Amino acid sequence: MNAPVPPENVFDWLDAEAEKRASAGLVRQLRPRPPVAEELDLAGNDYLGLARDKRVAGAAAAAALRWGAGSTGSRLVTGTTELHTELEHELARFCGAQAALVFSSGFTANLGAVTALSGAESAIVTDKYIHASLIEGCRLSRADIAAVAHVDVKAFSHALSTRRKPRALVVTDSVFSVDGDIAPLGDLARVCRETNASLLIDDAHGFGVLGEGGRGAVHEAGLAGAPDVVATITLSKSLGAQGGAVLGPRRVIKHLVDTARSFIFDTGLAPSSAAAALAALNALKAEPELATKVRDASMNLAMQLKAAGFTLCVPEAAVISVHAPSPGEAVAWAGACAEQGIRVGCFRPPSVPDGISRLRLTARADLTESDVDRAVKVITATAPRGAFAS
Amino acid sequence: MNAPVPPENVFDWLDAEAEKRASAGLVRQLRPRPPVAEELDLAGNDYLGLARDKRVAGAAAAAALRWGAGSTGSRLVTGTTELHTELEHELARFCGAQAALVFSSGFTANLGAVTALSGAESAIVTDKYIHASLIEGCRLSRADIAAVAHVDVKAFSHALSTRRKPRALVVTDSVFSVDGDIAPLGDLARVCRETNASLLIDDAHGFGVLGEGGRGAVHEAGLAGAPDVVATITLSKSLGAQGGAVLGPRRVIKHLVDTARSFIFDTGLAPSSAAAALAALNALKAEPELATKVRDASMNLAMQLKAAGFTLCVPEAAVISVHAPSPGEAVAWAGACAEQGIRVGCFRPPSVPDGISRLRLTARADLTESDVDRAVKVITATAPRGAFAS
Repeated sequence: MNAPVPPENVFDWLDAEAEKRASAGLVRQLRPRPPVAEELDLAGNDYLGLARDKRVAGAAAAAALRWGAGSTGSRLVTGTTELHTELEHELARFCGAQAALVFSSGFTANLGAVTALSGAESAIVTDKYIHASLIEGCRLSRADIAAVAHVDVKAFSHALSTRRKPRALVVTDSVFSVDGDIAPLGDLARVCRETNASLLIDDAHGFGVLGEGGRGAVHEAGLAGAPDVVATITLSKSLGAQGGAVLGPRRVIKHLVDTARSFIFDTGLAPSSAAAALAALNALKAEPELATKVRDASMNLAMQLKAAGFTLCVPEAAVISVHAPSPGEAVAWAGACAEQGIRVGCFRPPSVPDGISRLRLTARADLTESDVDRAVKVITATAPRGAFAS
Repeated sequence: MNAPVPPENVFDWLDAEAEKRASAGLVRQLRPRPPVAEELDLAGNDYLGLARDKRVAGAAAAAALRWGAGSTGSRLVTGTTELHTELEHELARFCGAQAALVFSSGFTANLGAVTALSGAESAIVTDKYIHASLIEGCRLSRADIAAVAHVDVKAFSHALSTRRKPRALVVTDSVFSVDGDIAPLGDLARVCRETNASLLIDDAHGFGVLGEGGRGAVHEAGLAGAPDVVATITLSKSLGAQGGAVLGPRRVIKHLVDTARSFIFDTGLAPSSAAAALAALNALKAEPELATKVRDASMNLAMQLKAAGFTLCVPEAAVISVHAPSPGEAVAWAGACAEQGIRVGCFRPPSVPDGISRLRLTARADLTESDVDRAVKVITATAPRGAFAS
């Protein structure tokens, strides 16, 4: 067991890569925040403001005391509590799906759904702007992958019609996480049905924000409960907790229990997070206007930014994206906003599908008019020259 | 938007696969449990019995009330709280590593560590029995992969010496999750140093159980703080919470922050889980004998099972594996144990690397002599004939 002297140089290549990132303006910095942020938060995904809601945080606290801090095992061993089952039942009922399965994150839910519903006998056709977790699922799937132009229904149709595999799965975000634009879900469903493909929709940024009472983009598109459609959501955005879920036909959910590796080989979600998600779902049921409020706040913020001279799209949900001239200027801009009390997201490669750095803003149901006014003033005053529409 | 009638048959292939699994005895069933299980738990991974400890559950509850139910965003946006940073600091200090990074699960920690520390310019050499999450990481890595015979140091050495890529990463579990045997970490470190490779050790089942005061198998092997070694642990086993962490040289942790996709694109761990893990770590520091207790309980259980006629290895940590003649008999055996008040794990393909189904038992620090006696009686009385050593 006399190992030679440990070599100091085995990770030297990391330093070389770090230098490359530094000169490209792509270094990332964790910035720990206090319990109650002093800044106005236009960066998080707590769309309905429920993470700190007393009903939600109280349910999390009560569950930790009653059920313990962790689930103690994988879902198929000891990690499924009655709370998990109740949450799955209620999520499915609310969204109009036959069944649901809770994962420990939206990331692992997407990995599990993509891999279990495709495989070597499948083609996968994706929008090229899908979320990183879906991309990882595709890479793991062993399927033939075609990533087509963003929201280009004809390109989907072509790829599906010319596929070499009998089975096919179309994979898309509903609301795209970087720009906040929306996929043409109805058209995609039509194309899938014309070509005998199934449709997987990541509704992480639609659930709680779009559709009747926040039932999400899949519900709004009339696809809830469809026998050929599967949706994934997170419990960590509109529901203010942690975790993810897959919603779909009962046989899909059974198949995931038997085969999804990111389900089988992962510890079950903590009981406190399951309880928080359940309480947040009840809050949303009791106050369906929360979904309208976040959409109104988002529209208000976007219109004022547009009036201030920035180029941006009319937001479909609660995400707004403002282009920055370069990664370095995006970081400086976000930093200047933070100094003046406004926390905004700063997205740079590899987190942006088109290579363009931007500020990424999110709305919340409890954002006031004066919050929006203040934010727009600060974002405008700190903007680099190249950020304004020419 | 007039989509054709949804086809009912697009997921028919799932039914065909379900039938195949049913006839092979490989159907899985979620069994929701109440807050306090009536059965004696020999299946979970709450090795130190801390999930329900009042200090740990109380810390989770207090954190939910103080910090909110969720972290509200990805770690690089709003999902890093001061709690996360404190937990990372304390984990690193306890384990003797330069730095640590917390993920939302051990699964995503392993994905992130494997992918970020390899890549197309790397070779990866793994033990063929590594955990599924490490295998998924390898599949995502774009590296040249060689999976060598279980705990075969010569095979590692050969694969490393004959690799085609300049860089190499060796990937292994410390304690293997199915059989509970241990990797020859010292020898692997030596081979790595002889061949200029780095070493990634998944210490999920060693942390809290092995090493001085539960510092883990990496610490016990004298590899803590080594400049060429990276460890992953979970917060959901010995620490009774949820989440995972990577421990290693500071430059490795910085590299993960900048490049690990399962870190960048995932919501941060819920504050309640971070607080629970921190409280559990403090409990372990205050009662270092917890680690000895779980090892003693494990050894006692294994020795009594051996005396009862089962073939099994001397356990290295808290996992004990007893072979069953077939998947169907494993399920029936585990079911019969449950009926008599003993919850045991039932592992079948694809959760077993060698295709052999088994009961998988885990010990806990708070297991009493009479618990062990009762468990051995039930496991023996319900065993299928083919389970006994011939």
